[in-house]
Amino acid sequence: MGLEKFLEQARSRWMVGDDSADSVAVSTRVRLARNLADYPFPGRAIPAQLEEIEQKIRRWWNTGGLKPLGPTKYIAIKDTAKIERLALAEKHLISPELARQNFGGVLLNEDESVSVMINEEDHLRIQSLLPGSQPQEAWVQASQVDDLFDASFGYAWSSQTGYLTCCPTNVGTGMRASVMLHLPGLTFSGQLPLVLRTISKVGIMVRGMFGEGSEALGNLYQVSNQITLGQKEEDIIEALNRVTEQVISQEKEARQRVAQADEMALRDKVWRGYGVLANARLLTAAEAMEYASLLRLGMDLNYLEGLSSGLFQELLVFSQPRYLQKIFERALSPRGRDEKRADLIRELGKMN
Amino acid sequence: MGLEKFLEQARSRWMVGDDSADSVAVSTRVRLARNLADYPFPGRAIPAQLEEIEQKIRRWWNTGGLKPLGPTKYIAIKDTAKIERLALAEKHLISPELARQNFGGVLLNEDESVSVMINEEDHLRIQSLLPGSQPQEAWVQASQVDDLFDASFGYAWSSQTGYLTCCPTNVGTGMRASVMLHLPGLTFSGQLPLVLRTISKVGIMVRGMFGEGSEALGNLYQVSNQITLGQKEEDIIEALNRVTEQVISQEKEARQRVAQADEMALRDKVWRGYGVLANARLLTAAEAMEYASLLRLGMDLNYLEGLSSGLFQELLVFSQPRYLQKIFERALSPRGRDEKRADLIRELGKMN
Repeated sequence: MGLEKFLEQARSRWMVGDDSADSVAVSTRVRLARNLADYPFPGRAIPAQLEEIEQKIRRWWNTGGLKPLGPTKYIAIKDTAKIERLALAEKHLISPELARQNFGGVLLNEDESVSVMINEEDHLRIQSLLPGSQPQEAWVQASQVDDLFDASFGYAWSSQTGYLTCCPTNVGTGMRASVMLHLPGLTFSGQLPLVLRTISKVGIMVRGMFGEGSEALGNLYQVSNQITLGQKEEDIIEALNRVTEQVISQEKEARQRVAQADEMALRDKVWRGYGVLANARLLTAAEAMEYASLLRLGMDLNYLEGLSSGLFQELLVFSQPRYLQKIFERALSPRGRDEKRADLIRELGKMN
Repeated sequence: MGLEKFLEQARSRWMVGDDSADSVAVSTRVRLARNLADYPFPGRAIPAQLEEIEQKIRRWWNTGGLKPLGPTKYIAIKDTAKIERLALAEKHLISPELARQNFGGVLLNEDESVSVMINEEDHLRIQSLLPGSQPQEAWVQASQVDDLFDASFGYAWSSQTGYLTCCPTNVGTGMRASVMLHLPGLTFSGQLPLVLRTISKVGIMVRGMFGEGSEALGNLYQVSNQITLGQKEEDIIEALNRVTEQVISQEKEARQRVAQADEMALRDKVWRGYGVLANARLLTAAEAMEYASLLRLGMDLNYLEGLSSGLFQELLVFSQPRYLQKIFERALSPRGRDEKRADLIRELGKMN
């Protein structure tokens, strides 16, 4: 399969982007943790029970359980090559934990906006992943999938606390809603630490996507609800939405300030980033993400034109080590990855 | 006048380069210091005497004194805008000192391979400036011009020491022969200090072109004869040629070694340099020269193709502050120069 064809097929809905979408929010995710009442949580279940759960869900799916979602597919982890699993994780369709297991599975709809992990930490992890900032829409979609399962399976549920989950931090709604934000303006203007501290005081959590510790590669941050117990889903979504909109408007103001302070320096920075991405023969993932962030900022500020709105998301995903190995269909040394990453990014640039 | 047309006219012969030329040697210069017997050296002459010398030479030139050189022009410094003078200096056609004087002049042939400064430190400074390593050819050309003056003017000359010059370091042959070498290989391999020390022991001088102190911008070094007294011109040229050839072969070996040690890293470095030059919106002269050096190395090693062989020389000259001001026909702030430099370099890239 040619690279172009491969990449065509490899794009999830969240990666394709949307020209009307907000330039700060990259994607929104809502996931619901659910468990079947008749079985122990996956961590405490014996292999035969895990197998039974998977068989049960698969039969249900086979007989049209998810038909309202259109075409869907079932991927059994144990039948899937390791590289393929890790690539799914880098597209945020499964967790790295599931990728490492030798049991469990995932159900995906056609545009990969819906994924349901089976026998990860909980029996079911229902996820809706959409481009831009769409907490409400993602909640509606996840909820629709939840209803389909709920109609056929008995959920572990208590009238006092709500949904029962393996980890206490998920008990109640079982919901984690998050928005991935691209915050180069607040980073360059130095305001980010203050903004992050303020957010965390209102029960909203922020962490850098990718990268370790406080270092956020690609200036990407995930904003999500901290509390799952004692709050209604709609209120959580509403609170997340409010905070997200606030950060987005602060980011936009920061971008204007940074651009006004020294527009030529910012243009120069953006164009140099573009020049390196388009010409380097070796690129580490961290570098690729740093320059991809500049590229996205440059597109948002109309400094760069004619690039597709999904390029940034593609750079984020395809820059990751496993994905490269999947694309090039072989194991790669770190140096080999840097080389293939640079090759791939030059190709992406030509296609866009 | 359009930029393209301007640049077309602005190219001296040494800048155009030559595909057959050596990839290490950029240009060769031979200059002869001469004085007229009947006048004090310029530094000790009164204005009326300086004026008389200039008038005499100009009349001689007007009546065909330099006819064998083809079309030539006479530029009187006092009639020339300051910016124009400095631009001539950046093309190495006159010295920065002459550019600052309010008297004196320069005679140029059509391809600017011959220039004769009048009333700089000496009455006459005859220069031949050729692309690549051509000490013998440059000496022949300078000598031919010297003969034309010699036939019409009485030179200050002593049978004991040879030509008399203002500065004792020029007495004898009055000759300074030099080759500009591009030494990125020896720089990257760390061998340069040793090579330079060895050269200086055999009466050949090395200094960084551009830049101050030991820092050589663009990895450019000028190799020249130290001694003018007690040696025949042919012997000086021969010695310079021998040393130059030796350094060139050491540089070529060093490039091979650097390329073999990690070819991908070198390709990456070259291409990133290209990416920045082709996309930056602000470039300092030092950066432009650093990347220009990588570009030239990349062209020599066939990593980059389709660029004209003179691009490196053009980048060196057109990157200099005065030249930019001349091209854009106005005084520029340092920041304005960085901006115009980046604009110009992107244009040069498109034309090449």
